[in-house]
Amino acid sequence: MENLNNLFNPKSIAVVGASEEEGKVGNVIAKNILNLGYKGGVFLVNPKHEELLGQKCYKSLNEIETDVDLAIMVIPAKFVNPIIQEAAGKTKNYVVISAGFGEINEEGKKREEELNQIAADNNLNILGPNCLGFIIPQLQLNASFAGGMPEAGNIAFISQSGALAVAIMDVAKKEGLRFSSIVSVGNKMQLDESELLEYLDEDASTKVIGMYLEGIKDGRKFISVAQKIKKPIVILKAGKTERAQKAISSHTGALAGSDEIMTAVFEKTGVIRAENMDEFLGLLKLISSSNAPRNGEVIIVTNAGGLGVLTTDAFKNKKIKLAEIGEKTQGALRKFLPEESSVANPIDVLGDADEKRYGKTLETLKKEPAGTILCLLTPQDQTPARKIAGKIIKFKEKSEENIITVFMGGERVAKAVVTLRENNISNFFLADQAVVTLDKYFEWKRNKSKMVLPNWENHPERQRKASAIIEKAVAERRSALYFSEAAEIMGMYGIKTSNFWTAESLNQIEFPVVVKVDSDKVLHKTDKQGLILNIKNQNELQAAIEKIKSNFPGEKFIIQPMQKIQTELIIGVKYDDIFGPIIVFGLGGTYTEIFKMVDFLVPPVGQEEIKDKVLDSKIKFLFQETRGQMPYSASELADILGGLSFLTQELPQIKELDINPLLVYNDGKESVAVDIKIII
Amino acid sequence: MENLNNLFNPKSIAVVGASEEEGKVGNVIAKNILNLGYKGGVFLVNPKHEELLGQKCYKSLNEIETDVDLAIMVIPAKFVNPIIQEAAGKTKNYVVISAGFGEINEEGKKREEELNQIAADNNLNILGPNCLGFIIPQLQLNASFAGGMPEAGNIAFISQSGALAVAIMDVAKKEGLRFSSIVSVGNKMQLDESELLEYLDEDASTKVIGMYLEGIKDGRKFISVAQKIKKPIVILKAGKTERAQKAISSHTGALAGSDEIMTAVFEKTGVIRAENMDEFLGLLKLISSSNAPRNGEVIIVTNAGGLGVLTTDAFKNKKIKLAEIGEKTQGALRKFLPEESSVANPIDVLGDADEKRYGKTLETLKKEPAGTILCLLTPQDQTPARKIAGKIIKFKEKSEENIITVFMGGERVAKAVVTLRENNISNFFLADQAVVTLDKYFEWKRNKSKMVLPNWENHPERQRKASAIIEKAVAERRSALYFSEAAEIMGMYGIKTSNFWTAESLNQIEFPVVVKVDSDKVLHKTDKQGLILNIKNQNELQAAIEKIKSNFPGEKFIIQPMQKIQTELIIGVKYDDIFGPIIVFGLGGTYTEIFKMVDFLVPPVGQEEIKDKVLDSKIKFLFQETRGQMPYSASELADILGGLSFLTQELPQIKELDINPLLVYNDGKESVAVDIKIII
Repeated sequence: MENLNNLFNPKSIAVVGASEEEGKVGNVIAKNILNLGYKGGVFLVNPKHEELLGQKCYKSLNEIETDVDLAIMVIPAKFVNPIIQEAAGKTKNYVVISAGFGEINEEGKKREEELNQIAADNNLNILGPNCLGFIIPQLQLNASFAGGMPEAGNIAFISQSGALAVAIMDVAKKEGLRFSSIVSVGNKMQLDESELLEYLDEDASTKVIGMYLEGIKDGRKFISVAQKIKKPIVILKAGKTERAQKAISSHTGALAGSDEIMTAVFEKTGVIRAENMDEFLGLLKLISSSNAPRNGEVIIVTNAGGLGVLTTDAFKNKKIKLAEIGEKTQGALRKFLPEESSVANPIDVLGDADEKRYGKTLETLKKEPAGTILCLLTPQDQTPARKIAGKIIKFKEKSEENIITVFMGGERVAKAVVTLRENNISNFFLADQAVVTLDKYFEWKRNKSKMVLPNWENHPERQRKASAIIEKAVAERRSALYFSEAAEIMGMYGIKTSNFWTAESLNQIEFPVVVKVDSDKVLHKTDKQGLILNIKNQNELQAAIEKIKSNFPGEKFIIQPMQKIQTELIIGVKYDDIFGPIIVFGLGGTYTEIFKMVDFLVPPVGQEEIKDKVLDSKIKFLFQETRGQMPYSASELADILGGLSFLTQELPQIKELDINPLLVYNDGKESVAVDIKIII
Repeated sequence: MENLNNLFNPKSIAVVGASEEEGKVGNVIAKNILNLGYKGGVFLVNPKHEELLGQKCYKSLNEIETDVDLAIMVIPAKFVNPIIQEAAGKTKNYVVISAGFGEINEEGKKREEELNQIAADNNLNILGPNCLGFIIPQLQLNASFAGGMPEAGNIAFISQSGALAVAIMDVAKKEGLRFSSIVSVGNKMQLDESELLEYLDEDASTKVIGMYLEGIKDGRKFISVAQKIKKPIVILKAGKTERAQKAISSHTGALAGSDEIMTAVFEKTGVIRAENMDEFLGLLKLISSSNAPRNGEVIIVTNAGGLGVLTTDAFKNKKIKLAEIGEKTQGALRKFLPEESSVANPIDVLGDADEKRYGKTLETLKKEPAGTILCLLTPQDQTPARKIAGKIIKFKEKSEENIITVFMGGERVAKAVVTLRENNISNFFLADQAVVTLDKYFEWKRNKSKMVLPNWENHPERQRKASAIIEKAVAERRSALYFSEAAEIMGMYGIKTSNFWTAESLNQIEFPVVVKVDSDKVLHKTDKQGLILNIKNQNELQAAIEKIKSNFPGEKFIIQPMQKIQTELIIGVKYDDIFGPIIVFGLGGTYTEIFKMVDFLVPPVGQEEIKDKVLDSKIKFLFQETRGQMPYSASELADILGGLSFLTQELPQIKELDINPLLVYNDGKESVAVDIKIII
């Protein structure tokens, strides 16, 4: 942490590859650092010059007499590694602007690996390569080749796209966003999102961390870091669609990752996901200037009934909701508001409302326990927008509620909007964005406050026994376990499986039964007629066994009781390329693929987290009493999923696990795993 | 139509209630008409003055020597009716600004009814009452009490909220929206959305009609009018949530209507529904300056890979899609684009692209069959945004593709954006809005092109027979039909019902069967134990009948075969307060209420429309072959729904109809209605 502080708050900087040629990156960066107000020492390095841009020019980093906290490399890729190697004893922090590393080809990849090794051997911090640099407005330090200096504020913005960072800086000026830092991460060779999160969480100037990401470099590290971050993290993650994921991999070579799993990870870690750029900018604006609301109740005050109604519409499917205004407050409002006003929420103070009416209404609402007041304004001819803004600012100064505004208009509200902004009140152009972002901010607070880091401990004895079963199958060159083996492992993790018989125990059978092929070579039994249902007697059984044997010569089979089917679930473990094992659970049966009622758990997960998730999952309706139907047991399912969470931690050699169906009952009968596929 | 032309394009106007008092509505309107450039004759009427605002003032409308096309009433409500009555022979068009009618109380409602009668008796057109007035920028006519004069253009904007209209006018200036007319409809006493649609469809200056609506006055009229309108209609309909509906009814007294049915009506009639204000403004902007794309294929050109990826994400769940770029074109692009560019869609021309590179790329893409090019730009230091805008404008002039732009930034793109706008190119601030609005515009074109007005004819003989059955039940003071009666009616409309036996035919029964109570007093049979399943022999049957008799003394019962259940649907007819009978169909079974897989049809509907809707419904998966499962028959269901459509037209006395379940099969077996509830 100390180290990154020297990188982002350097007392001296060297620009290696500074240039006098207009428009060249080495020229732009040198001038950005020299001319925009940075107070530290600046050294230019270029072996071809004695003097550059009016100051002394050094042949190499080592030639500089004093310490250099940070070196910015703007030289062709092939020179980067040797120069850093040479200076590694003197300078510990580097920004490698140069492209020509992992993003281009195999040679570049090798170069990047070598550089990474140099960093590790010499205890260096390296941002990039292939990045835009960074900007710390408070230090008036623009160590990037983007022009200009954003306003200093409390938003840290990390971008995996340099061009997008430049566009956002331009938008930010217009929208009044102010930054503590802007960092372009480039190839994220060494410093990736996780290190930056840790650094920024401690950075006193930063209140909110916004990130544009195309991929996450180390999924497990990201999870464990993001869970511990106390500040709000807002991520705009590109790659929702397959097409976009393809575009990402051709664009930066990053792995975009499954979007659904990304969402599950963000939920688990309390990251706020922005669905698009509009939400991203809106969230940064809101969080930058407001505290998280103390509760989810919102009061709307408007001078246009229509806008009040549209804003109410925006609360559809949100966690925040319109507050009920108490009788007493309604009475107090009625005393001074015109007769045609509405004193129920949304409160309509009418089109001719002036600053006094707005002010008095706000004062009166102070006694209400709502967390947020959403103050709407349309600029009628007689509306004193600036004066009303003044009342709102005064109100904010001495109140515990959040207040955010939507002054909807153009020229007529422009000055009022600037006044609001200068006084740290988030104004939104349109009401929907205000509601969406407020909802997400509130949800973040709720998530973070109930977040418990799982207290985890493996059971070595169980791990040893289960591993032995898997090793045996591996030794026999099988890619899947037999049912009997899978059932044994399931038993160790508290998951009850269906009773079964094999060729050896035919005489103990209780009819009706089913016969199934049991082989690692036949994984989709129904498709390939490896499953015969509803066998009622020994004759039928013999015929069924013959059928299976002739369909799958040489394979084993098992016989199971014909189960009473009430509700079928599917549960399992998938291996994700970025985040490792992920637990999946959802509705099974005929239309599994169509309804896609599936949720994800990111292990390790504690029982509390699992139960919360189950009760908030797509199949939550099973656990509620609906129209005379008895509820299913959420804690039974949570226990099974808890067992799987242990399993993922103790048996990483399992590549895939599917229980399909898991039959569950609401009549007291215990749930049972009928078919189990374990791929090793 | 002629008549409304005199209202909105009057050669002379009288302001009744013109006032000299600053700030009064009668003063504002008089000055708006006099001072903003209107070229027709203007007469001020106020019995208290000889002269007003520097011109002669008349005592009454009749005192004016010449014809008066339009009178604007800004006098207290109680004077409105007598004055209009008196002048009805002379002046045929009125705008009643005055409030104090249906929106306030019973007295006001009576006043509004009286005024409506005066209008009908004298063949008058009356806009309002309780409205803001209207504005026709092309005539420099501001006949409203909103200040200013919007730019003249091709957007007609109808608003049920005056205050919102004022706010939108202010936003419009900033966003470059230009209007053919702005009309505030107030209480919609006589002129409602339907009349205005008819008028504006013929209005040569209007290309797109935008409406903010809180309710629809006459649902059936709206459907028949909207279906015939050739121009795009964009509606922002408030009242999605119950809470918002409550707010509407307290705000304007309008009935907001069921939101789902509203959506079905908009789909049927080809209305584009804007989900929020952002979409509403975006759609007006896009349609105002672009033609509907010739197909749904879109090519993205960008100078920032990140923005290209985010834009690709925005295509998730859209009908429009990214085009595949042909090999030949890719080759041609590769010839002049830098090596690191991407020539697949999204096409990345890189951050250092100048106007030449953009221009050449666009030229090369001309040979592609895509309907739209979406041109993205982020303002890098070296990006000549204005020059690139110039190339885009040139490209548009001579090409058949649509081109829309996203120049993402603030100051750095501001001038380029103005240039684009002046040359009728829709520029969006953020990519998501561009994609959403383009998708809806494309969908509108597709909907409109396949829209067929149903060719409808009742069958009087069938109607007579079915009505007789209903009349008998009415005579017996029953509120629901017996199963036998309902089954007979269903048969007339081609819907096969389950076989059944009654107390009279017990000896013909084939087991297994079910017994049900059959009474208009017991409508939820399962809840109240009025249904006994799976009866296997005469003994069980006798016991079941005794049980039912003791549960429901004096009620009838029926016996039906125990049906093999495969898939359960529910279908029915609901009566909507605004739109009348609506056909509902969807998935039945245990979780009907939870999955809410229901769609709506607005009768009368032709077979083509029904089949399209079935194949695009929430249960469309039933009609596709999925994982070895045979598809169900869409045309069988369409025929059943077609029968119901006839039924709604021929038997309007039916208040509610429910078939639950309708059992359907994919093994060749015919579908069968098991339980039928007809409420009369």
